[in-house]
Amino acid sequence: MELKLPYLLKNSNICYYDEQKLYIGNRKIFPFEKSFVICSNSEEISTAIKNMITQGGGPLQVALTSMCYLTSQMCNNILEYDFDTLCKNMQTIINSRPTNTTMKRVIEELLLKLKEVMIKSTPIQFRDYVIECVKEKEHEEDLVYHNMGLLGSSLLNDGDTILTTCFAEHTLILSIYYAIKEGKSIKVLANETRPYFQGSRLTAPSMKEMGIPVNIITDSMGAYFMRNGEVNHYMSASDLVCMDGTVVNKIGTLSNAIAAYYYGIPYTAFSMSPDKTKTDKNKIKMELRDGKEILNIFNHPISEEGIEALYPAFDIIDSKLVTNIVTNKGIFSPNKIKEYF
Amino acid sequence: MELKLPYLLKNSNICYYDEQKLYIGNRKIFPFEKSFVICSNSEEISTAIKNMITQGGGPLQVALTSMCYLTSQMCNNILEYDFDTLCKNMQTIINSRPTNTTMKRVIEELLLKLKEVMIKSTPIQFRDYVIECVKEKEHEEDLVYHNMGLLGSSLLNDGDTILTTCFAEHTLILSIYYAIKEGKSIKVLANETRPYFQGSRLTAPSMKEMGIPVNIITDSMGAYFMRNGEVNHYMSASDLVCMDGTVVNKIGTLSNAIAAYYYGIPYTAFSMSPDKTKTDKNKIKMELRDGKEILNIFNHPISEEGIEALYPAFDIIDSKLVTNIVTNKGIFSPNKIKEYF
Repeated sequence: MELKLPYLLKNSNICYYDEQKLYIGNRKIFPFEKSFVICSNSEEISTAIKNMITQGGGPLQVALTSMCYLTSQMCNNILEYDFDTLCKNMQTIINSRPTNTTMKRVIEELLLKLKEVMIKSTPIQFRDYVIECVKEKEHEEDLVYHNMGLLGSSLLNDGDTILTTCFAEHTLILSIYYAIKEGKSIKVLANETRPYFQGSRLTAPSMKEMGIPVNIITDSMGAYFMRNGEVNHYMSASDLVCMDGTVVNKIGTLSNAIAAYYYGIPYTAFSMSPDKTKTDKNKIKMELRDGKEILNIFNHPISEEGIEALYPAFDIIDSKLVTNIVTNKGIFSPNKIKEYF
Repeated sequence: MELKLPYLLKNSNICYYDEQKLYIGNRKIFPFEKSFVICSNSEEISTAIKNMITQGGGPLQVALTSMCYLTSQMCNNILEYDFDTLCKNMQTIINSRPTNTTMKRVIEELLLKLKEVMIKSTPIQFRDYVIECVKEKEHEEDLVYHNMGLLGSSLLNDGDTILTTCFAEHTLILSIYYAIKEGKSIKVLANETRPYFQGSRLTAPSMKEMGIPVNIITDSMGAYFMRNGEVNHYMSASDLVCMDGTVVNKIGTLSNAIAAYYYGIPYTAFSMSPDKTKTDKNKIKMELRDGKEILNIFNHPISEEGIEALYPAFDIIDSKLVTNIVTNKGIFSPNKIKEYF
């Protein structure tokens, strides 16, 4: 089985740029269209992220590519060549998804490293350095993905059916890839994941591209299959892991985690980087979105005019409900996640 | 507060007939259109029920009205005037929704009563007798609804927010009506209820018509609001209650019942008639529907061609997860439901 990542996970399909513009792969309409949202500046990039054009690992990749794009724009005299301007623009992008603290941390670390280099370099040298740093970061991320995939695969048994919510991207796909490579047979049940259908639109087609057997279910059916003994493992990505083992992930994760706990099924969350600054769940900043986003599906209303919806975008999953947190430094039980550092 | 039932709960909006045809209120496209599916015979009526044109208490009301309609057709010589034909036709209708054992029981009881009357009557006399029996049955049902509403209201406290799945019709609406009449303030969170959106299309507009504050959420959000302490009671109808206290209801009920159990929130199921013949959960006949019904919403696909979905239509909720079963004979804890008889 040769590894060929699905369309959605190729960096150039997540984000790329040219002399004039930055292009963000539109995950909101995939797989119906493979198109890109075109941005000219940090405000537009931020708006695209806020509008959920990309999600999951997407915003970090967009932020990294944006750093190259904005530096190039500075070299072309389109933006003022100034470190504070770069920082301000990057901050606009980071702030577009407050729950995504990985994006914030990675970009702020990079900016810190870049400051001194800028003073000592010509614009072109600086631009090339930024591009090199971003490439290095992408390569690092890649190694992390594969390491986490290998760790994830060790949790899977031959014949397992994995239930998953939203789009857990590289980490889940590589976990299954390595499990299959080891001769294990693995199936996936993908929650459609309202309101944006990342499960049916992103996860299911990506699994299919990888040749992994997948069925779509609605978000309300996970417990049915768990009760029937048809789910062996619940796995999801995580937007945030706190130091008390609390996991934050896409709305819908909590109800499945509770059902998994009730039926004695392990729940594993993948975490690119547990957040040292979030000592406990009280430090979580919640993203409440406009209820209107729920009330229309593919431009068709789901109810009568004048009735409002509520839309909390993320679930907080208490550590008690979490069996494993797979990180690049190993698999932790949630109460031991501090040992990551 | 004067009682004015919402559009969907008026018998004539559920089903009516004239000389030629029987009309079933199309709950599949309400509230976008208030239209009826027109049927000429038991096969067409059965198909409409199978196609989910009506649901919840709808099929029973359709079966009762069908009995009047088919008897009238017999009097008009359109159908053979014969008891076995009537039975055969009613059986076709009953079999359209195997989970709905109330419909089966009520109709079979009525048929038993009718057999002797038919022998002794003229066709016109018999037709009028059937109409009278059905009216009586409807009046009985009405008293049952109000009684259950009063019982349900006794479980509600001032300031409560009720989470509900699908469309629990009269029993939930009357429970809230009586609670509000007693001066209690009640709010509702309605799960949209995929795949047919009965929550957003039927429950939410009906609550609004009744002046009850309601918000729509996706099916995956119940646990979020329970965790936040924003839900005081989870309430649903039930398609079936077994003698071991097992509740069968719309897919999605189980995950909310588990979350309610986990957070110590009561789960109350309304049951028009617990089923004596179902001694335990092993006697439940499950309705597995075509996964294709999930894969399109308002004629728009939710995934790529060639990926399949699974669609179990109902959840089995173990008695451990059920706090109260509200019946016309009182409120039972699930382990005491046998005392109903």
